[in-house]
Order: sequence, then structure tokens, then C-alpha cells
Amino acid sequence: MLAPVHAVLARTGLDAIALVPGANFLRVFGKDFHQMERPLVVVVPAKGDPVAIVPNLEMGSFEPLGFPGKIFDWRDEAGYMGAFKAAGAALPQLGKGTRVGVEGQRMRVFDFMALQSVLPGATLTDAHADISSIRLHKTAEELAALREAIRLSEIALEATVQQVRVGMTEKQVEAILLGELFKAGCDGLSFDPIVAAGDNAAKPHASARADYAIKRGDALLFDFGGRYRHFSADITRTFFVGEVSDHDRAFYDTVLAANSKGHEVSRPGITASDVDDAVCTVLEQSQFASFKRHKTGHGLGLDVHEAPQIMRGNQAKLEPGMVFTIEPGLYRDGETGVRIEDDVVVTENGIESLTSFPRELRIIG
Amino acid sequence: MLAPVHAVLARTGLDAIALVPGANFLRVFGKDFHQMERPLVVVVPAKGDPVAIVPNLEMGSFEPLGFPGKIFDWRDEAGYMGAFKAAGAALPQLGKGTRVGVEGQRMRVFDFMALQSVLPGATLTDAHADISSIRLHKTAEELAALREAIRLSEIALEATVQQVRVGMTEKQVEAILLGELFKAGCDGLSFDPIVAAGDNAAKPHASARADYAIKRGDALLFDFGGRYRHFSADITRTFFVGEVSDHDRAFYDTVLAANSKGHEVSRPGITASDVDDAVCTVLEQSQFASFKRHKTGHGLGLDVHEAPQIMRGNQAKLEPGMVFTIEPGLYRDGETGVRIEDDVVVTENGIESLTSFPRELRIIG
Repeated sequence: MLAPVHAVLARTGLDAIALVPGANFLRVFGKDFHQMERPLVVVVPAKGDPVAIVPNLEMGSFEPLGFPGKIFDWRDEAGYMGAFKAAGAALPQLGKGTRVGVEGQRMRVFDFMALQSVLPGATLTDAHADISSIRLHKTAEELAALREAIRLSEIALEATVQQVRVGMTEKQVEAILLGELFKAGCDGLSFDPIVAAGDNAAKPHASARADYAIKRGDALLFDFGGRYRHFSADITRTFFVGEVSDHDRAFYDTVLAANSKGHEVSRPGITASDVDDAVCTVLEQSQFASFKRHKTGHGLGLDVHEAPQIMRGNQAKLEPGMVFTIEPGLYRDGETGVRIEDDVVVTENGIESLTSFPRELRIIG
Repeated sequence: MLAPVHAVLARTGLDAIALVPGANFLRVFGKDFHQMERPLVVVVPAKGDPVAIVPNLEMGSFEPLGFPGKIFDWRDEAGYMGAFKAAGAALPQLGKGTRVGVEGQRMRVFDFMALQSVLPGATLTDAHADISSIRLHKTAEELAALREAIRLSEIALEATVQQVRVGMTEKQVEAILLGELFKAGCDGLSFDPIVAAGDNAAKPHASARADYAIKRGDALLFDFGGRYRHFSADITRTFFVGEVSDHDRAFYDTVLAANSKGHEVSRPGITASDVDDAVCTVLEQSQFASFKRHKTGHGLGLDVHEAPQIMRGNQAKLEPGMVFTIEPGLYRDGETGVRIEDDVVVTENGIESLTSFPRELRIIG
């Protein structure tokens, strides 16, 4: 089970990698754990046996994983430092001058400080990208789970938009969407969904309001996803309610053209930077250039935001099996916003869009 | 808005406090932000103006908060280090020998490393407990939100157990529960719910199985909660399906006696340690002493696990307005588990149980 981690160790020259519960942990061990006040940390050294620091109450879930090393469990009444100290003592090879890679975007400071205190000679370094590379290329089984998450999410979206009426609040629409996601069969949420109408749609990460009634002519933006077997859909569609002005139609069609450009240019061998550049150029050469706020997209899998970041400057080349979002948007502060987000997988010759919900401007309600 | 943070600074002697999105941030600013690959950090020094490092795409949500200091925003194409450097330069008072408190259980390592790199003279220290103390005593408005989260969650639980039948899988029951939570009106999940039957109930944090059919005589444990206005219910009830053996009834009633003891002894002035001790003693003096795995409970609010930890050794005294869980459990590995969890608030004279779902053994299905 540790072969992918050993491959990263060999490639990077790190002396060890520490994992905490989350996407990489799930990929390696096939199991997720809650991350709260009880630290659970696994250290995989390049040489010698791995060690695990595990809250005693998780042992019933951890032991069946068949962890191939020493497990130091700790009980609430004793606290976790004893287990950390024992783990540190079992890793004498991680002495002065050694480097231990950690997941910088996932590990929390108190885990980090506890680990550093028992490996005083080692330098803990942020190796988030290197470690997460074990999840860059999706397996057929992973893609099947993601396809199902997306299929169920699109069913929920269609069922939701058919219920939207002028005068509803964003919160009411959000409640409908949440219900439809679980009715469709999702087994979790990718993230708290964004349901934003009118001026709220101009905030890329808006919160649904209970005190704003959706008006005729409003944009209504949904950015949401259901989970299925740990894989997260991440879909954005923007509708107009009742009617759309010519100006907003042109605004929408500019985003749609940028989204289409992303589908068109993405293929193996092109860099993530080039994809972003092509998509952003459509927005920047339009009459709405000043309303662009963010990059084109991000990788998608066990984490909702992961590599490859589809961003100018990222010279990573697309390769078959990578999954990412294409989600250009334009945001007129205080007025409206439009974003259209698809999830795509890189194939041998180009990409396949995993999302199939229509992208053309649609009037609802 | 920063008065509670300044109170912590004055009490602790810290030179600054850094906040990242999460429960404390939400309490201070009234707004939550997604924590993904884009850092958002606020630094509040004891002397001088606070600074904020904010992803540009969040500015539409951040600016309306009325942050009383300098905001350094950064765009995807530029990366975040420029904003961190500018923020560091705006905090010359945080020089050599100063101490900056961070939220150790919330801040991630890459935020920490970026902040440390631009405040090279300062020592970043884990002040999670001190910072989170601003949320220890719940306001009437907060309690109202929590009461509503619990009320809706209990409606969902009752609706769910009425649909449970022998032969269903845990996953099927989980799907029913999720649907009922949103149908009841919750606006989020406190955490991914635990629905565990039979031997799976022996794992305190089990994952629902799609390949196990619930049998007659199984325990069926639900540990779950819905959110309402950012406040999280956290409720556990264990039922038996179809029938219960005498042995399991005695097992259940031992946990129930421990839960009742927790309700009985909790009052202002008693320590969290004493509450845990009283509850644990019931378990430890029973015939099932060897099946105890964890402490009695934890504080509950904007975070699902927060202070006060109801744990031997925690000498913090209960005070009116504190909210915590009473959740003793017993776990027979490979056989079954029982946990009964209530959410309670400390009053002037004792406690009030916010959960009202019956605790007595109930046969369902």
C-alpha cells in the first residue's frame, strides 16, 4: 500500500513523508478519519519501518487497514505527546540534516509542532504538491466514482431549477438543491454549495441569503457538487430568471466562449498555463475584460481543489487521466456574475467532458 | 469587532493573534470563507492596526465586513507571497522576541510557513485554546441557533428510524438520514454522519457500509447532526433492530446510567475533569469496564469539537453559557457498540439538556 509514497520518496530525495487524514491518506490507506482535536499522523521513512500515531478510539478502524509498521496509540486521558515521543524514538534515522515532507495544505499547525518536537534534528518541509502527485492520474475505478458523482449532481440540478420561482430566497433554493442531491443518491457534499442571485452572484464564493427575494432578470448561479464514494463533483451553471437583458446575454456568452475555448485547447502535452492563457485571453479581449477575477480551474478528485492548477505560470503538462475544472467567470460588483464550470478528464487525444449539463443560456422560473 | 481578540491579547500577553477562516474567524467577522489552496489570514497586533491577506476573488465578500485595517489582496496569477511580504512589512512591531498566537488546530502548515517567513523575528505559538475562549460562553442568539439545529436534527432522526427495516444496508439508512436532515430544514451537516450497525457500531467513528445488511438483534448507532446558521447539533442515539438480547440490554443500560450521571453532576463550579470522572466511574465500576474507549465529551458550537473538553485532567470549571456533549460509550470489538450523546448548556443552577430525543432503549424496525 505504501508503494506510491515510496515512489515520491525516491523521486524527491526526502527522508520521510508524514501523512494526516485527508485525500492522500485516503488514496494510500482506503479509509478516511475525522480530523478534530485528536491527532492521527503516519510517518513513512525512506529507510526502515513506518510508524503511526493513532487515537485509541480509532484503533478499531485503523487496525484492519493492515498498516505495515508500528502503531503508537494514545488515550484521551493520557494525551498524545507520549505516542509522538515513542514514534520519534522509533525513527532514529530521521536525525540531523534529514528532511521530512508534510502536506502543507492539509496538516494543521498542532500536528506539525508535535511532530517537529519529537524529530528535533529533521527539517519539516511543505511537500504538498509532491505527495499529492500520487493522485494526479485517476484510475478507471476513480473515474467511475467521479462520473457517478457528476451524474447524480446534474440530476439534482435539473430537479432544482425546475422548482425555482421569482420571489424565492437563495436560502430556499439552496434547501431544494441540498434535498435533491441526497434524493438523487449522493453520499455527501463536495462543499457547502453556492446559490447566488443578482448582485450576490458577483461574489465568486457567495453565501446564500435568507433576506433577498429572487427578482425577474436576476442571474442565478449554482456552484455545487455531490460526493459519491469520496469523489466530488464540482459544477457551476448560471441561469437567468424570467428574462435576460441584451447586456447580460452578451456577458454570459463571453463566459461561454471562454469555457468553450478551454474545452477546445485542452489536450495531452499542452501546459496548464497555456490552457489558462487561452481561456483568459477570450475574457481579456472582450468588452468585459475588467470583470475577470480568477484563474480557469483546478484539479479535481478526492480533494475538491488539487493539482493541476489551471493557471498561468503552471508549466505542468496535461497528461491522460488528469481531471480538472474549466470554470471561467466574470463578476460585475454590485450587479451580477456568471460562471460556467465543467469537469473534464484528459484522454489520449484531447479531453472528455464529464459534465454534460447544457451550457447555453437558459431562462428558468 | 476586534474587542474579543484584544481581550485575549491583553490576558495572554501575546503580541499578536493570527486568524484563519473557521469558527473563531466566523465569531469575530460574522462570515466564513472556504479554506482551500488560497490562503486568507488576518493578523491582529496588540498595538497598531490589523492587517489582512485576502485572495482577490474573495474581496467582494471581505470588503463589506468593514475590516478596520489594511487589506493586502493577491491574485491567482501573482501568487500569495507578495501579499504576505507586504503584510509583514506593515507589522514592524512584530520584531525579534515577539510572540504571535495562531490557531493550532485550524491553521494549516502552508499558512504558518508563509506567515513565519515574513515575520522572521517573531515566534509563532499555538494559542488555539486562548483564542477559542472567545466562543466559550454562548450568547442567547447563538443558543437559539443551536437549539434550532438540534430540533431539526431530532425531527430527521425520528423520521429516519421509522423507515429502518431489517435487511437495509447502513448506506441506505445513511441516505435516508441525509435526506431527512435537509427536508427538516438544516442548512448543512455538522460532519459526515455515522450510521453503524452490528459490529461496525464497535468502531466509535465508523463509516457506513454498502455491503452489510442490518440483521435482527443488531445495534444501530447514529452519530450525526444538522447545522443551522453555522451552529452544529451533535447527537448520538443507539437503537436495537427487531429485538435485543439481555446481555445487550445490560450493556445499553450501563451507558444510559453513565449518561444520566453526566446530566446529574454537571453544574457551574464543577470541573470538566470531575464530570468525566463521575461518568467514567459508572462505566469502570460496571461489568463492562474493559469496553470503555474515550472521554465523556467536548464543547460544541461553531466548531463541532471545541472547549471545554470533558476529560479527566481538565481543571476548567463549568460556567453558565458553556455548551458541551455528554456521550459515554462502550465498544465490544467485533460485536457491538453503544453510545448515547446529549448536548447540554450550563445554566445558573445546573444544566439544561438541549437534546430531548428519548434516551431509553428502543427497538425499531
